Amino acid sequence: MKKADKFVKNAAGRMVPTIVNGKKVIPFMGVNKYKPTHRGAAPRVPTCIDYPEDGNKIVESLKEALIKSGLKDGMTISTHHHYRDGDYVSNMVFDIAAELGVKNLRWVPSAAFPCHKPIIKHLESGVVHHIEGSLNGPLGDFCSHGKMEGLGYLRSHGGRYRAVADGEIHIDIAVMAASAADMMGNANGVMGKHPFGPMAFPKADVKNAERTIVVTDSLIDFPCYPWEIMGNDVDFVVILDEIGDPQKIVSGTTRITKSPDRLLIAEHCAKFVEAAGILKDGINFQAGAGGTSLAFVSFIQQMMIKKGIKARSIIGGSTKFLVDMMEQGLTDYIFDGQSFGMDTIPSLRDNPNHIPIGVFDSYDFHAKGNLVQMMDVIVLGSTEVDVNFNANCVSHSDGRMLHGIGGFQNCMTAKCTIIAVPSFRDRIPVIKDEVTTLVAPGELVDVIITERGIAINPRRKDLIAATKNSGLPIRNIKDMKKEIDEICGIPAKPKLSDEAVAVVEWIDGTILDVIRKVEK
Amino acid sequence: MKKADKFVKNAAGRMVPTIVNGKKVIPFMGVNKYKPTHRGAAPRVPTCIDYPEDGNKIVESLKEALIKSGLKDGMTISTHHHYRDGDYVSNMVFDIAAELGVKNLRWVPSAAFPCHKPIIKHLESGVVHHIEGSLNGPLGDFCSHGKMEGLGYLRSHGGRYRAVADGEIHIDIAVMAASAADMMGNANGVMGKHPFGPMAFPKADVKNAERTIVVTDSLIDFPCYPWEIMGNDVDFVVILDEIGDPQKIVSGTTRITKSPDRLLIAEHCAKFVEAAGILKDGINFQAGAGGTSLAFVSFIQQMMIKKGIKARSIIGGSTKFLVDMMEQGLTDYIFDGQSFGMDTIPSLRDNPNHIPIGVFDSYDFHAKGNLVQMMDVIVLGSTEVDVNFNANCVSHSDGRMLHGIGGFQNCMTAKCTIIAVPSFRDRIPVIKDEVTTLVAPGELVDVIITERGIAINPRRKDLIAATKNSGLPIRNIKDMKKEIDEICGIPAKPKLSDEAVAVVEWIDGTILDVIRKVEK
Repeated sequence: MKKADKFVKNAAGRMVPTIVNGKKVIPFMGVNKYKPTHRGAAPRVPTCIDYPEDGNKIVESLKEALIKSGLKDGMTISTHHHYRDGDYVSNMVFDIAAELGVKNLRWVPSAAFPCHKPIIKHLESGVVHHIEGSLNGPLGDFCSHGKMEGLGYLRSHGGRYRAVADGEIHIDIAVMAASAADMMGNANGVMGKHPFGPMAFPKADVKNAERTIVVTDSLIDFPCYPWEIMGNDVDFVVILDEIGDPQKIVSGTTRITKSPDRLLIAEHCAKFVEAAGILKDGINFQAGAGGTSLAFVSFIQQMMIKKGIKARSIIGGSTKFLVDMMEQGLTDYIFDGQSFGMDTIPSLRDNPNHIPIGVFDSYDFHAKGNLVQMMDVIVLGSTEVDVNFNANCVSHSDGRMLHGIGGFQNCMTAKCTIIAVPSFRDRIPVIKDEVTTLVAPGELVDVIITERGIAINPRRKDLIAATKNSGLPIRNIKDMKKEIDEICGIPAKPKLSDEAVAVVEWIDGTILDVIRKVEK
Repeated sequence: MKKADKFVKNAAGRMVPTIVNGKKVIPFMGVNKYKPTHRGAAPRVPTCIDYPEDGNKIVESLKEALIKSGLKDGMTISTHHHYRDGDYVSNMVFDIAAELGVKNLRWVPSAAFPCHKPIIKHLESGVVHHIEGSLNGPLGDFCSHGKMEGLGYLRSHGGRYRAVADGEIHIDIAVMAASAADMMGNANGVMGKHPFGPMAFPKADVKNAERTIVVTDSLIDFPCYPWEIMGNDVDFVVILDEIGDPQKIVSGTTRITKSPDRLLIAEHCAKFVEAAGILKDGINFQAGAGGTSLAFVSFIQQMMIKKGIKARSIIGGSTKFLVDMMEQGLTDYIFDGQSFGMDTIPSLRDNPNHIPIGVFDSYDFHAKGNLVQMMDVIVLGSTEVDVNFNANCVSHSDGRMLHGIGGFQNCMTAKCTIIAVPSFRDRIPVIKDEVTTLVAPGELVDVIITERGIAINPRRKDLIAATKNSGLPIRNIKDMKKEIDEICGIPAKPKLSDEAVAVVEWIDGTILDVIRKVEK
């Protein structure tokens, strides 16, 4: 079986396969063109008869739970990434699978991190056939070099939820780390020895998986409330000494940048938002956790104080910075899908206006609207953009897939999506003629902001008109590119083979692009 | 088409149809015998493309929302009963359907109340074909007299959730009253002009209906949080002047009984629970709202204070009484599926340990366990019991179906289920040789308590042993019956025809009994 077969040119002009890992897929048809006509996943109907009358679902070990869940060749296993780079559970699962001689598993993590490097040996030995999920670091590099048996499948956070709820990904066993659980399987991420925050990612998994295992290091008395996972959806509970290191949930950069260039980018963003009339009382926005994003939020914060206004809601990946804003009365609500630091957890646990959200809530495109659409503005980073406003967040200019796809694509449906990037990194220009990997179609990127100026997508005549006399450095993106190229020179194209190693799915489930094998 | 056809004797010895309203059904096979092998409902997959980009789903009127939802002959319409006898919305829906000339609708309310008497004219005119849901008062009486075109279908609260989630009831349009909503459809029952409490019942409906309409009298700014209904699941939002009268959510009796007999019953219950060793620190129990139930809880409260213990959780239909107990430190949590009075709503809204629950959480038998199974004891009322511990809660001894089935059946799976009844009402004995309608199989009723004594189900040898030397009036149920019959005489059997007018479903979806037409 070919990993990828029957390539066609999609509506974005990219050659994509119509067969991926033996299954038919739909090429990208253009933004808002593909409408589903099928029905969603029909989950297994369990019965209380098959579960302990006293509610006690604790089994001896993760191995026993996996055996009782019927672990066998070819199954699909899901885990989530709320411990981020501190997750211990995913590696344990595949070590046990290897010990049991199980092969050809499909791993569907909500995201993989450098801590999951040990999975490489299981990919090499055939325990894991391929990974479908946000990949970065060593696993991304491994996949980029064409070493994975199956094709990688990159889905956005919302896209992953969609695929599970739509019935495209059928999970056999969901293994869900929880910082606290009771014997029935009610579980959360805010109690216990090592809390990690909200549990946005497991919700589609536990509702649709054939079997769900909750793994915790902190057993508490029934009822474990809040129950982000409900015991009613859980088959087995496993108590381990350690399941993760919450110190490692901290995202790469959770401090405001000190780089003068990046501060300038953030300032441009904030001033643009103000000039465009977006920054008003009751604004809803999404805040990122990177240094530039935090700097942007910090500028917005100062502007809000000066204007005497406040936000209605801020969606985060939450940081202490956002918590401080809520405590200063600068927002009514924080919607929190993921903690980017342990210092946000007391607020999440104790402040009723600091609200844990799920991926369905925020990002699912196969819903009747979602929260991200309600956001007035979102500022994102990216690895590359191009003169047609297309954006890439997964691969470097050398073609290697080193960054997670995360919620990047989902954020494209906000009312105003700004990509904030330095004009070059290590003397490599960030604005290209064409992005190496197409992750977000240009028609959804409203503004690209660098330290050298602000390029507004010609489609957004409203934003162009609103900021015309703002005095901000509004520029044509091609002029900006030219200026950068004159400084850096135009770098050589990455050496990529024709062989596809992964596909990039669009939020509607169609195939937007492929990632090609990096030549040595 | 016959309403009910092909009768067979089920495992409880009752003659039940295998065809109901033209659809095949499964006769009751015995407690814990029927295991589902099918998969659950596969909901329609919507797409954000079809919903307003700005999130504004408000339409002019309920009529417009119903037309846009494609209302047509033969559809299934659901509403919920959180306003209880104060609901205005259900009647409006069928008045509009009548105006539009739509016929043969199936109404699937979570419960119907006397306020829904106007639906009778729509049943008579053919706008509504039949009702599937908890029925009482005028609609129950109407059905009892064989006047409904289709067969009534009584499902417990948990059974209704199960049927929707299992895909047995396919809802075309869910019309959900909410005391507050935003333009996107995020909605709850604790804000706005006329709050009614938690929204336990709409959850399966909004997830599985083809279309969901939220109807409110209080539009608030996005985001309306808490969102017991999420805008992501909502098609249309309708703003009306009035949607219900929260004064009428008060259950018939929410004061502790003053009747000496009923106080004695309650005292027997409390003393039994203590003697059986059930009343200990960390107890979980469900509390009812009737006068006897409240008296029982009041006795338990006093015992807890005396012993210096507290409950871990109490499931309610919530009352001010429960709220007071939590505020006195006598329970860690209240799990609240329904407010039985407006005076509980501030606690539900503001106390994080007063937790709104759904029917899935508490009562769904097609789950991997549920909350009611975790309850150490539940005390319930009933219309009749019999010497085999079978129980009836829907029909009177004259055969008329006058009481809602509610969560009665679901409570049978608690660790100890006690039925507390007066030994006779209006000189009609409550203990029969055989219940008129079988709603709960005797093997699940653990104890029957009257003012004359306590009958323990012979199956519960543990309870018999534990209370042997308690000094409580433990009696054989047949002796108790004999004594009562000697006082009251044995009443004439109700005059019932052979014709079935409704079926009673067991919690697993099989048919437990029928209700027969009352002869004039």
